[in-house]
Amino acid sequence: MREHEVLVGFRPSGRETHVLPGTKLIEAAGAAGLLIDAPCGGEGLCGKCRVVVASDAAEPTAAERQWLTEAELEAGWRLACQTTVEGPAEVDIPASSLPAAGQKIMIRSRGAARSTSDAPPVRKRYVELSAPLRGDDMPDALRLERALGVEPLKMDVAVLRELSARLREADFRGTAVLAGDRLLDFEIGDTTADAFAVSVDVGTTTLAAELTDLGTGSEWATAARLNPQARCGDDVLTRILHARDKPDGLAVLQAAIVTAVDEMIGELCSRAGVPRERVYEIALAGNTTMQQLLLGVDPSPLGEVPFVPTGGRGFACQAARLGIDIHPRGGAYIMPVIGGFVGGDTVAGLLATGLDVAEGPALFVDIGTNGEIVLKADGRLLAASTAAGPAFEGARISRGMRGTPGAIEKVVIDGRLRINVIGDVPPIGVCGSGLIDAAAELLRHGLLGRDGRLNTEADGDLAAYIVMRDKQAAVMLADGSETADGRPIVLTQRDLRELQLAAGAIRAGIAILLRQAGLTPKDLESVMIGGGFGNFIRRANAQRIGLLPGEVERRRVRYMGNTSLAGARLAALSLHARHAAEELARRAEHVDLSTDAEFSREFAEAMIFPEENDVRKSN
Amino acid sequence: MREHEVLVGFRPSGRETHVLPGTKLIEAAGAAGLLIDAPCGGEGLCGKCRVVVASDAAEPTAAERQWLTEAELEAGWRLACQTTVEGPAEVDIPASSLPAAGQKIMIRSRGAARSTSDAPPVRKRYVELSAPLRGDDMPDALRLERALGVEPLKMDVAVLRELSARLREADFRGTAVLAGDRLLDFEIGDTTADAFAVSVDVGTTTLAAELTDLGTGSEWATAARLNPQARCGDDVLTRILHARDKPDGLAVLQAAIVTAVDEMIGELCSRAGVPRERVYEIALAGNTTMQQLLLGVDPSPLGEVPFVPTGGRGFACQAARLGIDIHPRGGAYIMPVIGGFVGGDTVAGLLATGLDVAEGPALFVDIGTNGEIVLKADGRLLAASTAAGPAFEGARISRGMRGTPGAIEKVVIDGRLRINVIGDVPPIGVCGSGLIDAAAELLRHGLLGRDGRLNTEADGDLAAYIVMRDKQAAVMLADGSETADGRPIVLTQRDLRELQLAAGAIRAGIAILLRQAGLTPKDLESVMIGGGFGNFIRRANAQRIGLLPGEVERRRVRYMGNTSLAGARLAALSLHARHAAEELARRAEHVDLSTDAEFSREFAEAMIFPEENDVRKSN
Repeated sequence: MREHEVLVGFRPSGRETHVLPGTKLIEAAGAAGLLIDAPCGGEGLCGKCRVVVASDAAEPTAAERQWLTEAELEAGWRLACQTTVEGPAEVDIPASSLPAAGQKIMIRSRGAARSTSDAPPVRKRYVELSAPLRGDDMPDALRLERALGVEPLKMDVAVLRELSARLREADFRGTAVLAGDRLLDFEIGDTTADAFAVSVDVGTTTLAAELTDLGTGSEWATAARLNPQARCGDDVLTRILHARDKPDGLAVLQAAIVTAVDEMIGELCSRAGVPRERVYEIALAGNTTMQQLLLGVDPSPLGEVPFVPTGGRGFACQAARLGIDIHPRGGAYIMPVIGGFVGGDTVAGLLATGLDVAEGPALFVDIGTNGEIVLKADGRLLAASTAAGPAFEGARISRGMRGTPGAIEKVVIDGRLRINVIGDVPPIGVCGSGLIDAAAELLRHGLLGRDGRLNTEADGDLAAYIVMRDKQAAVMLADGSETADGRPIVLTQRDLRELQLAAGAIRAGIAILLRQAGLTPKDLESVMIGGGFGNFIRRANAQRIGLLPGEVERRRVRYMGNTSLAGARLAALSLHARHAAEELARRAEHVDLSTDAEFSREFAEAMIFPEENDVRKSN
Repeated sequence: MREHEVLVGFRPSGRETHVLPGTKLIEAAGAAGLLIDAPCGGEGLCGKCRVVVASDAAEPTAAERQWLTEAELEAGWRLACQTTVEGPAEVDIPASSLPAAGQKIMIRSRGAARSTSDAPPVRKRYVELSAPLRGDDMPDALRLERALGVEPLKMDVAVLRELSARLREADFRGTAVLAGDRLLDFEIGDTTADAFAVSVDVGTTTLAAELTDLGTGSEWATAARLNPQARCGDDVLTRILHARDKPDGLAVLQAAIVTAVDEMIGELCSRAGVPRERVYEIALAGNTTMQQLLLGVDPSPLGEVPFVPTGGRGFACQAARLGIDIHPRGGAYIMPVIGGFVGGDTVAGLLATGLDVAEGPALFVDIGTNGEIVLKADGRLLAASTAAGPAFEGARISRGMRGTPGAIEKVVIDGRLRINVIGDVPPIGVCGSGLIDAAAELLRHGLLGRDGRLNTEADGDLAAYIVMRDKQAAVMLADGSETADGRPIVLTQRDLRELQLAAGAIRAGIAILLRQAGLTPKDLESVMIGGGFGNFIRRANAQRIGLLPGEVERRRVRYMGNTSLAGARLAALSLHARHAAEELARRAEHVDLSTDAEFSREFAEAMIFPEENDVRKSN
């Protein structure tokens, strides 16, 4: 725990975090890895983010008085987006305030809400068969298919080879594992409650995975790690060239990602106490290149004009065919792609956000190593990709890191520079949300110019935070006495330039798509942001640094977490979700920014940070 | 060529054979491996078996005068079932007189004739795609699927991995190989004419295979060999015990059959000049045990009451999964089975004979190592199996052999014993049809008693043919001076007993099925015989030895050749045929003769050869 920070504990998860006083509870929950659902974007407009503050709760705001009864307020109920942390606190988060855990995820498509339990890719059925007797020589497989009512029942030769012995060992009572009309296995006894799926976000920089109960849709464990392919290059293009030009380049890249995924499955299973062979499905989402590398498909055509992917459809096969070790006949599903630079992660994001069925014009921005942007307007889905770079994921930033324990995830300047760190540990580096905050606060306090240059001639108390490192200006976020490794954590002039490039590319892309649809930022009824760059995005700061257009009403902006992972989870749990993903991928129109004459100009303009007034006036 | 025999040549096949003068042309064609279609059973009643005798044709019979015009007769047209060979002859067989070669095989099912070109399991389509240009980044697989009109187009990961490179190598022009909505391959250039299937009859004793053009249905090559599993036992039960009790017993048996099938494919391909990777489908038919061994499925439950098969449905998988080397993603199909002892070979026979759509009560008898019998009556299909033993295939007969070159396939006694040998070679042994002839002729001439005992006290010229061998009576079919190996070919008392057992078991089975349906042999409107025991079955002789009931009208009996192979061929060429096979297998009712109290009595009675009169009076 750092100076000034206070401890907040959350129940029933038992998670804890240290935050600065004044932090909104919804942010604190995010810092503890708990994403509280706030459909209104945390503006106190929907009353959904209800929590109980067990310790002394702050005075209710007007919004809280509107959504909660006097009795509820008396009992400590508050809205997580309104209440701030003032001292150490214990908070109960009811399941209804969390979007995923403990409840079915709903897929919205074609306007109708559908549960992920619709058409699960794998079902289990416990059956008791009559054993064969003299005069009844019905084949074993037919006996089973009639009991299941699945006619004809298909199966692999491996299952056929085991079937008779297994039925006899089970005394003709057991659990059929079915993928559609295909028998994956016949398990002895009633194992219907034990069925799991894994979903994976295969990011260029970061991998994230989740173990989910196939029956209930609830999360059992999560895991994350860096993409080990980074050894062969930290962006998509260098990996394409590596696969194309190095001996065994493709095989090396494929093995790297498959091994990492396989290890994550092991980690998830061991943490949840689930045997690997009870995992029957894995769904993976990544950009087009990551998905081709995962499949062992040569990405060379993705490295040359016109950047053509090999496959377009979602791809289903046995996981074992890809070298992934789950149930021996468990299935793998890889997301459909829109184009060479708008991949399965974007499609997963569309699936998870329900952008296509959002009210009015709506925008989805997925911030990963690249920035993908999809605009829904007039029934069209316009999709574009910008080479934003991995700054928001902490890569190419001198002390950058992912939003994991030790990351500076929040920066506030009020007389002095204060930071918030994820987890109860000394800071190690800075993640995307901390970067955004730092740049915005530096801009507000005149320490950073609109041209992106640090002001080395500032005076006053704050001037002391500007230091010189390796002959360039830098901002001191934490000095060596505070950090884990004794080295100060600074943001250099170059780091801020990377951030500006990334934010500028995304904002320029948004501008082009809006213009193509004949819209302005003010027309957007919702802006959904996905990505793994932190636990929480402070919208005013995102606008201050020009990541989002200043004219967008702030209450319309909503951070959705890792939408690629969320979409992969939907696909892991539901064939309807896969069908919807297929439709979204085919419906989306790829807008090629590289051939758009206006993009370069927009990008150049976006490289100047917005005026303070541009942001303020609309919000 | 043997004494007295004359050479008959057939066009356009170029096949030749030596036969005794007086042999019907349809028999001579059979001896040359050409099965002329004679729907009336060779009675001159249908006029279908038209041929042209190029040399001096014999005087036309009354039946020929009825079916052929004076001009046709003048031009040498005759009916193959009427005209006999009197001297060396050249005969033209028009394609319309052959059931399979050069024309589509028709599948009759549910009363509607269907061509095998309906729903072939594999199709080829030549396409020319537009190459990707700047601004057109449509994924390669989508580009192809739109050109094919197959949406969505599925494929294995192996195909996906090759697709982009192959399309570019082919300059986006080539041939898609499709199995339903699945892309098996994309071949450079137009290869639509090169598509083949292999069909295999997996007999307990004998394997027979055929290479067929998938597009036209025409035969390109045939091959046959002994089932190498015979090393581990010559009947089904010993192989079941071998698989169950010996270390690696199942693996050894599976490897033996797979290796043999694979070698036969090599033989077929090399003979026809077809590369293996142009074979896209293989269909296999065998009895239930043979099929389970082929699939690597433990047959133990087939060795114990109630003799339960593991699978019932037809089984489709990649041929490579079974270790069979055709196109790397080519399919294998194994026939559905009716029960533990009525297997895929019988289902194939039902498919090939169209028994279910025959007019009136009809019988199908498949004579292999076991004898399977199916009676169609009142819309039911009653199926039974008899352990007839492999006598008709030449096994367990001291000089027995299959109906291949060197086999004595016909025996006539007219003052002296005369034989006909398949092919232009000295005799090596005797095949099923020769056995039937020999026994019938011996019975007619008093050299064999109705109790199956050779008459060692006969007098007259024929008595000289009865000799003693190894302390048992025997019939001399060919002396050492005539045979290939210098050893005389004899039929021993024990051989005749084996024959009598085999024929008796089948006749008893027929009697039980007829009785269950409330019918007598006279009610049968057709009797279709399948099996690989010779090129031609002489029906009067089959009745004389009690293989078929004497009361059946002879013109209603028709020899269909290897119906297991013919049915497998239909399944190799058509998904409709597979669907029909599935329906036939599920419709057929298995009658268990082993639990039928009357069967033992019928069998015992059938062990006495019929009276001459019993056969004569009805025909």
